[in-house]
Amino acid sequence: MISKKMENMVANSSAIRAMFEEGNRLAGIYGAENVYDFSLGNPNVPAPETVKDAIRELLNEEDPVVLHGYTNSNAGYEDVRTAVAESLNAKFGTDFSAKNITMTVGAAGGLNVILKSLLNPGDEVIAFAPYFGEYRSYTNNYDGVLVEISPDTETFQPKLDEFEAKITAKTKAVIVNTPNNPTGVVYSEETIKKMAAIMEAKQKEFGTDIYLISDEPYRELAYDGVEVPYLTKYYANTVVGYSYSKSLSLPGERIGYLVIPNEAADSEKLIGAANVATRILGFVNAPTLQQKVVKKCLNEKTDISYYNRNRETLYHGLKELGFECIKPEGAFYLFVKSPVADEKEFCAAAKKYNILIVPGTSFACPGYVRLAYCVSYETIVNSLPKFAELAKEYK
Amino acid sequence: MISKKMENMVANSSAIRAMFEEGNRLAGIYGAENVYDFSLGNPNVPAPETVKDAIRELLNEEDPVVLHGYTNSNAGYEDVRTAVAESLNAKFGTDFSAKNITMTVGAAGGLNVILKSLLNPGDEVIAFAPYFGEYRSYTNNYDGVLVEISPDTETFQPKLDEFEAKITAKTKAVIVNTPNNPTGVVYSEETIKKMAAIMEAKQKEFGTDIYLISDEPYRELAYDGVEVPYLTKYYANTVVGYSYSKSLSLPGERIGYLVIPNEAADSEKLIGAANVATRILGFVNAPTLQQKVVKKCLNEKTDISYYNRNRETLYHGLKELGFECIKPEGAFYLFVKSPVADEKEFCAAAKKYNILIVPGTSFACPGYVRLAYCVSYETIVNSLPKFAELAKEYK
Ligand SMILES: Cc1ncc(COP(=O)(O)O)c(C=O)c1O
Ligand SMILES: Cc1ncc(COP(=O)(O)O)c(C=O)c1O
Repeated sequence: MISKKMENMVANSSAIRAMFEEGNRLAGIYGAENVYDFSLGNPNVPAPETVKDAIRELLNEEDPVVLHGYTNSNAGYEDVRTAVAESLNAKFGTDFSAKNITMTVGAAGGLNVILKSLLNPGDEVIAFAPYFGEYRSYTNNYDGVLVEISPDTETFQPKLDEFEAKITAKTKAVIVNTPNNPTGVVYSEETIKKMAAIMEAKQKEFGTDIYLISDEPYRELAYDGVEVPYLTKYYANTVVGYSYSKSLSLPGERIGYLVIPNEAADSEKLIGAANVATRILGFVNAPTLQQKVVKKCLNEKTDISYYNRNRETLYHGLKELGFECIKPEGAFYLFVKSPVADEKEFCAAAKKYNILIVPGTSFACPGYVRLAYCVSYETIVNSLPKFAELAKEYK
Repeated sequence: MISKKMENMVANSSAIRAMFEEGNRLAGIYGAENVYDFSLGNPNVPAPETVKDAIRELLNEEDPVVLHGYTNSNAGYEDVRTAVAESLNAKFGTDFSAKNITMTVGAAGGLNVILKSLLNPGDEVIAFAPYFGEYRSYTNNYDGVLVEISPDTETFQPKLDEFEAKITAKTKAVIVNTPNNPTGVVYSEETIKKMAAIMEAKQKEFGTDIYLISDEPYRELAYDGVEVPYLTKYYANTVVGYSYSKSLSLPGERIGYLVIPNEAADSEKLIGAANVATRILGFVNAPTLQQKVVKKCLNEKTDISYYNRNRETLYHGLKELGFECIKPEGAFYLFVKSPVADEKEFCAAAKKYNILIVPGTSFACPGYVRLAYCVSYETIVNSLPKFAELAKEYK
């Protein structure tokens, strides 16, 4: 009797649930320290100490009626939005003000808000495989159609020829996610410029507006000083979805924001629609205490040296064992080639060694597996001998 | 270029925005203390002191990686859900466990989650006018059709004859909201029993499942010891949407829960669907710190004596001035008959006295206006002479 649209999804999610329960079962038998769970993107670096300080200060300083109240605008507190805008302007030389910022329930909330604001049934949304599987659900929520660009498994950079060929008069949005989940790849400025040129030309060709949605929960997680271009500067019709889930290790608190620049097509209306969507989807406003917290922590960052050590150790460890993967430049994932075509078989084999990893099929890229290295360093170090045993099976 | 579905809604919401800005403009000219803003359901009683204590304790006691992390299940922390279930069982003699509880982003989030889980396009959702206008948007989000039962303006109790007549084979859900926004009415046990009997009979007649959705953000705001029946006890196919927005004055924090009892039709699947809906709508999980806060505050209540004083003063004050309205038994709203058929005209007249009130049309009940008395006592007292002047216009 549940919604038909949900039927399949429930079946699917039982599979994820089963995997999770399998992890718990293994931990019960072997002890949590002997299970190498690389399946979840849940940060293990604690939120910076300043988050705690910020919360304590807010409890002391702010009127609880305001601190915990509905915000006047569904977009959030004006002072918070101003602070976010100014911080972006200082970092990227942009020219945003409070009106361009809508505080959201994380990036997931923001993506739903912008897709609900934009999509008519049948509108197409382009994503580059491998991509965060939820994009398909978010698009489906508003009866949009997700159009996939096949992966370039050499570089995991976007295949621009195929991209150009697949843009149609129905293309309403293109989602990019850089640094990328699941590959860790960062799109270079050159790539972004080429994408922008293609989209500009296609907008002219079809007389349509094509929105570039930049999904950026991993913006601050970039290693070796790699630059992550700020996309509004390359393409006018860009909307940015940001999240503090990873940058401040606050994923459970559900806080992020959308940027809808004045330069975006129909900007005024789109901002209005984002407000309404925030309200009627039931978010109402982003959690208020956390809005004020992030205002106080705009210059904070998570400890990326922690993730970097994990990255180096896991990457080199696996390479030495003969596994194939490119070195991630950002985020906290490693996308490894499965030694057998059916990567689900490989995931099952890994489980025998208490190693939990996610099949690439979940990211529209079969033949690969994703390892989330936002785990303790000990997990990484202790997992390597297990990976060595696993590797032997495929020699 | 925004979604067609959103076009009208944006226009509409600009009207609300305009009203809000008018309030700000008046406050700017006359001083905030000389504006009598009864337009918003934003509680003015601060959250209980124990909320502050709970947050401080949690910061000291809990591992931040857990406290601020994604929860393992999209339904929320297991310990919180167990505590909620046990507290309901103790209060209402029910038999819930953690699996029956899904923590939500307020009642608004919960209603979206359950409607997404249930509705196929064209499915009908029944609501009794006057009702919270958002029900229409929430239903529309999932391409459902809101079916309205006309108001009984004598008692503002549900018109059960019309209800019975309007249930069809397409009726998927019925939303009730008691204590009610905007009338303050509480449905008696007798009413609930009659409704349940009608729904049971119709389920048999059509061979369908008809879910009763009990939207309960005002459950704890009941005056004079009036009983608010717990609906799962009267009708097996009931889902409860609760919220701490008003009971703990935490509306901005976005925390509440759904109860999906084992007795509900297709319970197992529906619980699974609610999990998936929580995830894919972008909520992911209810804000984690606030989940833990409400666990620590399950026996706390807001200071309803404050609202009660407002209720008595405003109700008697307006009655003495000749206004017609029934005495609310719960929530913090007064639903007053407009002295002229077009209540928007009345709202405009009120604005001349710096009184801001909401037209009944927003609740599918023209000819009435809603006053939210979750304001300071001074606002109530000082508004009465203004209402007196307003009343004179209609003598
Ligand atoms: C690419 C990507 N987008 C969006 C999200 C959602 O993040 P949140 O809603 O917590 O900000 C995630 C989370 O893992 C992600 O990996
Ligand atoms: C009847 C009713 N339902 C639901 C809500 C949403 O409340 P929340 O999402 O803050 O719990 C409200 C808020 O005013 C309401 O009046």
